[in-house]
Amino acid sequence: MTLIHSYHDAQLNELSNLPDWLLRLFQPGQALAMDDQFRVTSDKPLTEIFGELNYLRNQEVKVSPEEYLQGLKDQVEPHVINVACPRFLGHMTSALPLFLQPLAAMLTRWNQNVVKTETSKYLTAMERQVLAEMHQLCYRQPSEFYLKHMQDAGSCLGAMATGGTVANLLGLWCGRNSLASANHPPLWYSQVGNQGYLQEQQADSLVIIGSELMHYSCEKGADILGLGMNQLLKVPVDQEHKIKLDLLLEAINKCQKKRQKILAIIGIAGTTDSGAIDPLIELARISREIGAWFHVDAAWGGPLLFSQKYKHLLEGIEQADSITIDAHKQMYAPLGTGMVLFKNPYSAKVIEKDAPYIIREGGVDLGKRSLEGSRPASIVYVDAVLRVLGHEGLGLLVDYGISLKTQFLEIIKTHAEFELLHAPQTNIVLYRYLPVKYRNDPLQHAAKIDQFNVDLQSMQRDRGKTFVSRTSIFRDNPLTKARVKTSALRAVFANPLTRKNDILAMLEDQLEIARELENQ
Amino acid sequence: MTLIHSYHDAQLNELSNLPDWLLRLFQPGQALAMDDQFRVTSDKPLTEIFGELNYLRNQEVKVSPEEYLQGLKDQVEPHVINVACPRFLGHMTSALPLFLQPLAAMLTRWNQNVVKTETSKYLTAMERQVLAEMHQLCYRQPSEFYLKHMQDAGSCLGAMATGGTVANLLGLWCGRNSLASANHPPLWYSQVGNQGYLQEQQADSLVIIGSELMHYSCEKGADILGLGMNQLLKVPVDQEHKIKLDLLLEAINKCQKKRQKILAIIGIAGTTDSGAIDPLIELARISREIGAWFHVDAAWGGPLLFSQKYKHLLEGIEQADSITIDAHKQMYAPLGTGMVLFKNPYSAKVIEKDAPYIIREGGVDLGKRSLEGSRPASIVYVDAVLRVLGHEGLGLLVDYGISLKTQFLEIIKTHAEFELLHAPQTNIVLYRYLPVKYRNDPLQHAAKIDQFNVDLQSMQRDRGKTFVSRTSIFRDNPLTKARVKTSALRAVFANPLTRKNDILAMLEDQLEIARELENQ
Repeated sequence: MTLIHSYHDAQLNELSNLPDWLLRLFQPGQALAMDDQFRVTSDKPLTEIFGELNYLRNQEVKVSPEEYLQGLKDQVEPHVINVACPRFLGHMTSALPLFLQPLAAMLTRWNQNVVKTETSKYLTAMERQVLAEMHQLCYRQPSEFYLKHMQDAGSCLGAMATGGTVANLLGLWCGRNSLASANHPPLWYSQVGNQGYLQEQQADSLVIIGSELMHYSCEKGADILGLGMNQLLKVPVDQEHKIKLDLLLEAINKCQKKRQKILAIIGIAGTTDSGAIDPLIELARISREIGAWFHVDAAWGGPLLFSQKYKHLLEGIEQADSITIDAHKQMYAPLGTGMVLFKNPYSAKVIEKDAPYIIREGGVDLGKRSLEGSRPASIVYVDAVLRVLGHEGLGLLVDYGISLKTQFLEIIKTHAEFELLHAPQTNIVLYRYLPVKYRNDPLQHAAKIDQFNVDLQSMQRDRGKTFVSRTSIFRDNPLTKARVKTSALRAVFANPLTRKNDILAMLEDQLEIARELENQ
Repeated sequence: MTLIHSYHDAQLNELSNLPDWLLRLFQPGQALAMDDQFRVTSDKPLTEIFGELNYLRNQEVKVSPEEYLQGLKDQVEPHVINVACPRFLGHMTSALPLFLQPLAAMLTRWNQNVVKTETSKYLTAMERQVLAEMHQLCYRQPSEFYLKHMQDAGSCLGAMATGGTVANLLGLWCGRNSLASANHPPLWYSQVGNQGYLQEQQADSLVIIGSELMHYSCEKGADILGLGMNQLLKVPVDQEHKIKLDLLLEAINKCQKKRQKILAIIGIAGTTDSGAIDPLIELARISREIGAWFHVDAAWGGPLLFSQKYKHLLEGIEQADSITIDAHKQMYAPLGTGMVLFKNPYSAKVIEKDAPYIIREGGVDLGKRSLEGSRPASIVYVDAVLRVLGHEGLGLLVDYGISLKTQFLEIIKTHAEFELLHAPQTNIVLYRYLPVKYRNDPLQHAAKIDQFNVDLQSMQRDRGKTFVSRTSIFRDNPLTKARVKTSALRAVFANPLTRKNDILAMLEDQLEIARELENQ
């Protein structure tokens, strides 16, 4: 056991290159009601919980608010996931600044509905202002541009959405309806639908193209928008998990020969799997050349733009027609704070809707250009992190996550138990455990190593002490040249509370479980 | 001035037939930082706020959490809308039980992501249990049904959504993809899309039919799903604002002659305009006969099912294939708590999605059958109101809203200044002010009365003392027999803090403004 020596080294706990003012926003994080503040969750099996909650409650029984809240604290909290735990290293949810808790209470007290000004007033203007700030982060237009469009009822720099899925759908919806805007009034497509457009164009179908690592919300989008998921073309990625441009061009060629209209090209700025970033500059150029909408899914990677060190990785994003960013990922806002930004302030005209009782033509109400209708004023959370953490703090947090990744790589490089599966550009690492008996010839035992890692991850998750997630990727088998599906452990580094010690504890946990599995 | 005598009658403030335990949950409602606790908002004009927020903030400036929260309190709160104000009587947002504020802080502390169990554990099971309770409220299946499906990974009794718009879209999406499920595997439609299906059926288009009072989210839905809004057929309503069944049958006939496939019939249980309820039993029968999906939009009216007095109004809802309910409307949960319920636990199979890193086939993760991906655990709010207000409390609140409406009708009936425009079934009243000089012959001065009411509502809104909203409806002109568009004031009664005195104060405010307008 090579790692355990450092586990209790108190010094490691102190090492963090984050400035004090920033770290203090997250500390002291009140531990959830687990046995131990470092735990991820209780060891109560999920199946047991499902068994326990398998009854219809007695409708006659009422509890007082105090009892209800206490019940949540006592009976529920121990069995939720402590996503703020520094050893929860597997998903895109992390510790949040603590002041967001009283802010949440305040927003519930207000309960504003930003669908229209009559139920939100100030917050409608605030949403437009904050979205303009995010727009500038991405598109860097001169300040006159923002003075003109920020608060102009006819302009739309972006829209809030629960999350990246809705934001991607919004972007693609605008892209689809814009297909006809050169020859028709803005709302024509929304009136005639896919068939009306395809008939006019004498085309057979609409397609969306992106890499095979597109988020599954793109499949949802292709389905919902009526294209069908068969019309979502997935181009293989290279070893860096970036879309292969030659294969993309090939796919485009095929479409053009087959009476298929290319609705959009999707570029990924931070794949969910591994944090990889597509070649955005080239994708922008290709999209422009073929006249397709260029959507960048930066739900995860968008906040790299705050980092002086890493923002160059997103070069080309400023050419996207629409961009998805989730503030609840690397902007440390609570869940429900996704957004889409539009390069052209008039793009969203193609999806506008009015209603006599609520959103009248020409009005400033936000509901006319969002996918959702009534919705909470989540923009305040985005405003809050922009003001309190600041662009500087958000950038430093990105840098910190990537520095944790570097530490992690150093550790697993020196431990033969682990194999790195993908050299990460940002802060998501794919790796796996190599059982002793297969370590000398992993290619021959691919299926067994796979199963071992699946079991390892399940056990680690169920014990609740530490956590990484799991995915599967395709790798080239150097013997057969075939692409082989491989199970991977997936560590996400974005928690400002995580220290080297926590990483070691997580790996230690895996080694312990692996030892058990190997001895079975 | 006939109303003012009662304005300060203290006794009226005490009159409420709500039980004490229920009322206490909403009281003492902390007034927002307006000048006066009865105000709806400041009198600062919206245009001024838009003017003030028309700049890009200095990215270098950071504020402390304390300063940030204080800034919201001091600079923002006076200019939001006090939707809990007992004299805010114009939209579907109302006072909330106060314990939801600490609950919101708690949920933000947890920050669970219910897209999957690995980031929500207990709350995944809780969401399924609470949705089953809502399902039973609507569909009244025997308890064995719920024991079988509530926690079974293969079943889906419903899904949470930000609001009614997303819930309606989810219902229609399932309806559309189910079109092919008799002859194909469940996911076929999602793969081939609209064109694939239409080609197979040799049909020209898909249509959705409902009354002209359908919520504008149905237009969004028809657009997003790729049908086109022209394929959303709007059938006129009768004087009670219910869909005219003879005209519906006529519309269906036309579709069948024109190679149009009817995707769904939409029934409205509580129109946004006026709270009217479509004849659900008949719509269910017709849908069944023509083999169309039957979706009931009960975003507003669904909670009538909690009322022993009024639940009969929704008879037929249990035959709907999908039902939309917003807990943030008449269930007194915060915004963001919409939901859709499915009669058939296997309906949602047609929209399932998987992803290797998150939602694996066969798993219990909720994200595979929701429109949204990552999303907050808003289900806890729904659970909270079901447990603390209880089915009983929620029913009494429905009754209370309708009793306020009755009081309101009595008042305006005895005041010639006001004209009732629609006899309401539930708790939304459409009326208007009749200026003195047109009072004897309103038909001749329709346009002028319209404009007067538009001005009246704008002034009332901008002054911020009290509030009703505004819509426009079609009425039969008894002289010309033509349908005439008429501007209507719209009062929504759902706030447990509202007393007769508040209604009088609101009308008083309108009389005062009307007097000013008449003297101009």
